[in-house]
Amino acid sequence: MGKLYVVGFGPGGYEHMTEKAIEVIKNADVVTGYTTYVNILKEFFPDKNYLATPMMQEVKRCQMAVEEAMKDQTVAMVSSGDSGIYGMAGIIYQVAEEMNANIEIETVPGVTAASAAASVLGAPLMHDFAVISLSDLMTPFDLIMKRVDCAGQGDMIVCLYNPKSKKRVDYVEKAADILMKYRKPETPVGIVRNAGRKDEASCITTLGELKNADIDMFSVVIVGNSQTYTKNGRMITPRGYRV
Amino acid sequence: MGKLYVVGFGPGGYEHMTEKAIEVIKNADVVTGYTTYVNILKEFFPDKNYLATPMMQEVKRCQMAVEEAMKDQTVAMVSSGDSGIYGMAGIIYQVAEEMNANIEIETVPGVTAASAAASVLGAPLMHDFAVISLSDLMTPFDLIMKRVDCAGQGDMIVCLYNPKSKKRVDYVEKAADILMKYRKPETPVGIVRNAGRKDEASCITTLGELKNADIDMFSVVIVGNSQTYTKNGRMITPRGYRV
Ligand SMILES: C[S@@+](CC[C@H](N)C(=O)[O-])C[C@H]1O[C@@H](n2cnc3c(N)ncnc32)[C@H](O)[C@@H]1O
Ligand SMILES: C[S@@+](CC[C@H](N)C(=O)[O-])C[C@H]1O[C@@H](n2cnc3c(N)ncnc32)[C@H](O)[C@@H]1O
Repeated sequence: MGKLYVVGFGPGGYEHMTEKAIEVIKNADVVTGYTTYVNILKEFFPDKNYLATPMMQEVKRCQMAVEEAMKDQTVAMVSSGDSGIYGMAGIIYQVAEEMNANIEIETVPGVTAASAAASVLGAPLMHDFAVISLSDLMTPFDLIMKRVDCAGQGDMIVCLYNPKSKKRVDYVEKAADILMKYRKPETPVGIVRNAGRKDEASCITTLGELKNADIDMFSVVIVGNSQTYTKNGRMITPRGYRV
Repeated sequence: MGKLYVVGFGPGGYEHMTEKAIEVIKNADVVTGYTTYVNILKEFFPDKNYLATPMMQEVKRCQMAVEEAMKDQTVAMVSSGDSGIYGMAGIIYQVAEEMNANIEIETVPGVTAASAAASVLGAPLMHDFAVISLSDLMTPFDLIMKRVDCAGQGDMIVCLYNPKSKKRVDYVEKAADILMKYRKPETPVGIVRNAGRKDEASCITTLGELKNADIDMFSVVIVGNSQTYTKNGRMITPRGYRV
């Protein structure tokens, strides 16, 4: 029976891949994923048989992967970070189901962008947090902003994935405005671009200044809770809660 | 200068450790952490110099680790999962600061329990989610429940860490009651015990039945959002939102 692995290869640096992700990719007959991801892996595993597909053709890519597995191949469908967090795991199960494919599917977890970014910033994620994608491709804008509002009300740390694209330039600013209903403008905010991979860059700013920050789709934004502080260039959320 | 690594070694199985975590532990002069964690690592790296400390002595353990690093040793302070998520990263920075220690500190991220558990269950985390610890050692009970309420209002998937201890037996049930203000009792809930390590076990139940489930402190509980469904024994949250 063919086997399809849905593999999260972590933030992008080889050293952040898990043993399992490395093994699965090494042993796969076919490695498939977005062109961007495939290009990262080609550096580490130059001799594999890659099947790259451009962005936005998710369903088609999954169908191709499932078809390969149905030919008794071992297929690794790769995502950055964790394959189960805004990755390919869900859609693969859905497509395999629709295709009535008699294959085995296994998800290989990885280090997600929030963890990679937090490790660069210091220790911002030491307390309860919400992970919210600002992409409105699949989620209505109002629901996204409602979630930001709820996270604000609950004083949760907020990790924003897909914070900005060419079309969505002001969502981060809107999210910051909502959070400032509940948190001071001085609240620390960390931005990490290319966390845990080549060209990593990070900065720490504040909620009030977030609108002036340089942010793109390769960045993750972490907004502290009411207890988060900055010291010696590190962003720290203490575990204990002063009441 | 001494160096202190704060290392997340992932859910517990060797195959889920990152290359970097393995390297750092292999090269450390001293490996320190809770007795439970140290025992896991002793199986994989039997020849290291370990310094185990029992639970509840966190500050003391951090002081010991910092002191070792101040003697120009390379120290690996280990946490399960990701060291930045309810791990040791924050307190290490705080203690090193208080001790005025002139050492280098580096956090090595790992696969967190939510990712490991999700990979076992299917693809429950494909949409926005909240990570909430039910431990009230450091957080007032009312704030924990307020966060659960906010996550419920925002229709976020909810990952409950530290769901139960001998003293806290009914917090999961209380959290379920709050979430049922917003979600149907049929909402799928996944429970994974020892995700990604020896003796892994999992089950899928519902919000309405959660109070009857077998849960302990080695488990993570993932409550689906309004779109989550179960099919062929897998818990799936579709990415698109039907509106
Ligand atoms: C479609 S999501 C994929 C998330 C991925 N599956 C994970 O778990 O990290 C893409 C978004 O993840 C974030 N991201 C992924 N890798 C990143 C990295 N190395 N550094 C910073 N952000 C990253 C960015 O916000 C980006 O817009
Ligand atoms: C103090 S927190 C540590 C979290 C850890 N730093 C992480 O990122 O996964 C301990 C809680 O994490 C969860 N946990 C950690 N490892 C787990 C595993 N392998 N399987 C299930 N739950 C786990 C449990 O809810 C446990 O009560």
